[in-house]
Amino acid sequence: MRICHAAGQSVVPAGGMTGLAGGHDSDAADIVLSTERLNRIEAVDARARTMVVEAGVILQQVHERAAEDGLMFALDLGARASCTIGGNIATNAGGVRVLRYGMTREQVLGLEVVLADGSVVSSMFDVLKNNTGYDLRQLFIGSEGTLGIVTRAVLRLREAPLAIETALLAVPTWDKVMELLRYFDAALPGALAAFEVLWRDFYALNTGEYSAIEPPLETDAPFYLLLDVFISDLDRGRENLEALLTTCLEQGEIVDGTLAVSEAERARLWQIRENFEPEQKKYALRFGYDVSLPIDSMPQYVDNVRVALGELQPDAEVFAYGHIGDGNLHFSIYPGAADRATVDEIVYHPLRALNGSVSAEHGIGLEKKAFLDYTRSAAEIELMRRTKRAMDPANILNPGKLFDL
Amino acid sequence: MRICHAAGQSVVPAGGMTGLAGGHDSDAADIVLSTERLNRIEAVDARARTMVVEAGVILQQVHERAAEDGLMFALDLGARASCTIGGNIATNAGGVRVLRYGMTREQVLGLEVVLADGSVVSSMFDVLKNNTGYDLRQLFIGSEGTLGIVTRAVLRLREAPLAIETALLAVPTWDKVMELLRYFDAALPGALAAFEVLWRDFYALNTGEYSAIEPPLETDAPFYLLLDVFISDLDRGRENLEALLTTCLEQGEIVDGTLAVSEAERARLWQIRENFEPEQKKYALRFGYDVSLPIDSMPQYVDNVRVALGELQPDAEVFAYGHIGDGNLHFSIYPGAADRATVDEIVYHPLRALNGSVSAEHGIGLEKKAFLDYTRSAAEIELMRRTKRAMDPANILNPGKLFDL
Repeated sequence: MRICHAAGQSVVPAGGMTGLAGGHDSDAADIVLSTERLNRIEAVDARARTMVVEAGVILQQVHERAAEDGLMFALDLGARASCTIGGNIATNAGGVRVLRYGMTREQVLGLEVVLADGSVVSSMFDVLKNNTGYDLRQLFIGSEGTLGIVTRAVLRLREAPLAIETALLAVPTWDKVMELLRYFDAALPGALAAFEVLWRDFYALNTGEYSAIEPPLETDAPFYLLLDVFISDLDRGRENLEALLTTCLEQGEIVDGTLAVSEAERARLWQIRENFEPEQKKYALRFGYDVSLPIDSMPQYVDNVRVALGELQPDAEVFAYGHIGDGNLHFSIYPGAADRATVDEIVYHPLRALNGSVSAEHGIGLEKKAFLDYTRSAAEIELMRRTKRAMDPANILNPGKLFDL
Repeated sequence: MRICHAAGQSVVPAGGMTGLAGGHDSDAADIVLSTERLNRIEAVDARARTMVVEAGVILQQVHERAAEDGLMFALDLGARASCTIGGNIATNAGGVRVLRYGMTREQVLGLEVVLADGSVVSSMFDVLKNNTGYDLRQLFIGSEGTLGIVTRAVLRLREAPLAIETALLAVPTWDKVMELLRYFDAALPGALAAFEVLWRDFYALNTGEYSAIEPPLETDAPFYLLLDVFISDLDRGRENLEALLTTCLEQGEIVDGTLAVSEAERARLWQIRENFEPEQKKYALRFGYDVSLPIDSMPQYVDNVRVALGELQPDAEVFAYGHIGDGNLHFSIYPGAADRATVDEIVYHPLRALNGSVSAEHGIGLEKKAFLDYTRSAAEIELMRRTKRAMDPANILNPGKLFDL
């Protein structure tokens, strides 16, 4: 990095290359700096519940090592088998456990970073609380490789749950989806570990003719809710959850529901959420989105996108789902003949008025750069530029990502 | 701020003035900028579980307003009746619920900040996830008024627990204190809301001749553990906890224990932890400390401080206690004739080798400025300076706090 700094040579850091916003894209003029040989788990302290890792360690290896001590690392996402912890930190990755444990930012106690000029900033704290001046770790987490290269980290581990129950519920209205979020969060404090919602079309597609999975519930409800609940009482936990779900059914909060009876069935329910093969089989072209907005605005927003797109392209389709407990909506759009820029505008434009975000968890990279100012103000972007210039005056670290200087 | 910036006039932001590190100290050459008239709670959204406040709102008012909707704001600390939310944010305040919910940093969704030059940076997000470039909020949170002045915030609210149980336990060894932390955290996931430890001397002082509180347990155990547990099942929650405590007693993890039977008794148990009147009655001079270090090093560290101090001043005394679940140790030292600088050195010096922190939650301010480099590396401090110079080139915002430029 010292040599590149002196030579003005651009450097693109690369972890598992699984990012969804083009943050690791490079061209022939760049040096791509891979962390793949920084692959050591250096230490685990089960009593302090910490793990020291190099940046290139694969997320799944972190999970497996933590499990050996009855612990868990709270970050989990679909790319777990190939993404690296350094990339997770650089992008502040989200995933399926944010509702309970927060994003990557909240799982990192310590960090070692190499700056653009090659100097090393070590903040390898292993304590939970450290109020000693600016929390520089936070500046690097989520900066997508533009301010420094993460080389090592101290991760916070958590107690692993004794068991996880998974339920799929058919919900008659969005109001009831929102009521159920507060209801389960209050009734299962600290145990509600996922609150995912699938719109009917998405549920029907992923349990339909292109899918190997039969629909566990009828496909005529507008919303399907997928819950993970951590169980701490092996004797009564499942029974308590069954009682809660029965109450929901009796009170009309849900119209139907199923509680997985085995690990295989749990996996099957999650496949309805996470399997994109039916989409790939049915549609040649797919645009994926990751936005956040106030939960109560979501169904109207999705409908508006659907209508706007339909006016443009009658054969376009919108499949919505996401980490709704976090305010994070994903959708897949089959654009017909519409181009990306047009669809992007339909999706992102309404977020300005909703105080939403053009990226909930995937980052900005190159793909959303043109829309950064839909979410962040001119003053914020100017402050980002000022920060970037102060830390990388030669602009060699992942240049052109996030914003132009 | 624009005028001060142009004139090079120093400005010291002031909230509730309850900080413990001298971050709001000023002299005759400074303008003190009070936020006391920024005292409006602007909005509460019970479904989204958010509250929009101006910076001068008192923490307790936030608690009271959240409670009206069955919600809670997770930050809680002794100064709740006079500290302001702006000050809490500027210092990244900690308190008694960090174990469960994290520090102030994790309770803030949006922020509005006035920079040194008078420009306003608004990041008033009300969504949980927003991965759109640098998370500038994090730079201001905990910067102790040196990078900007917090004027408004969007706070994250949580579901309030149905009830809270409080237990006081006498623990025979430090090993068992550590085992109990993992045991309760695993057995009561998401429900363990405080894990405070009192060393015997502190427990004895606060239940002794200078205190109005009789000791609920004998005073001969080396450690006393104060637990708060959130109850979600009003029928069986208390019974479950009693069963856990009985198991601990049978297995020798604790030697004695009591579970509060009323709100009055809960308050009395917490008084043993939070009441400093006995100290004030007995001792004319008291130095307070707030450090963090790996939990397994704590008893030896406290003993070492006690021995080092005793060699210097045979009549000195050390009373240790703290948020041990967070790795945060507080203590009060009665220094005899020893001066502050000497005692500071005895307390802070060993933290370097332990990778500990000279400030777990109180911040650096003026009081710990000389010891910042015991916890943060030269590269980190240089990066802090670079950040400060980029954001406040005239050095008018709380100058001389944290570090010298």
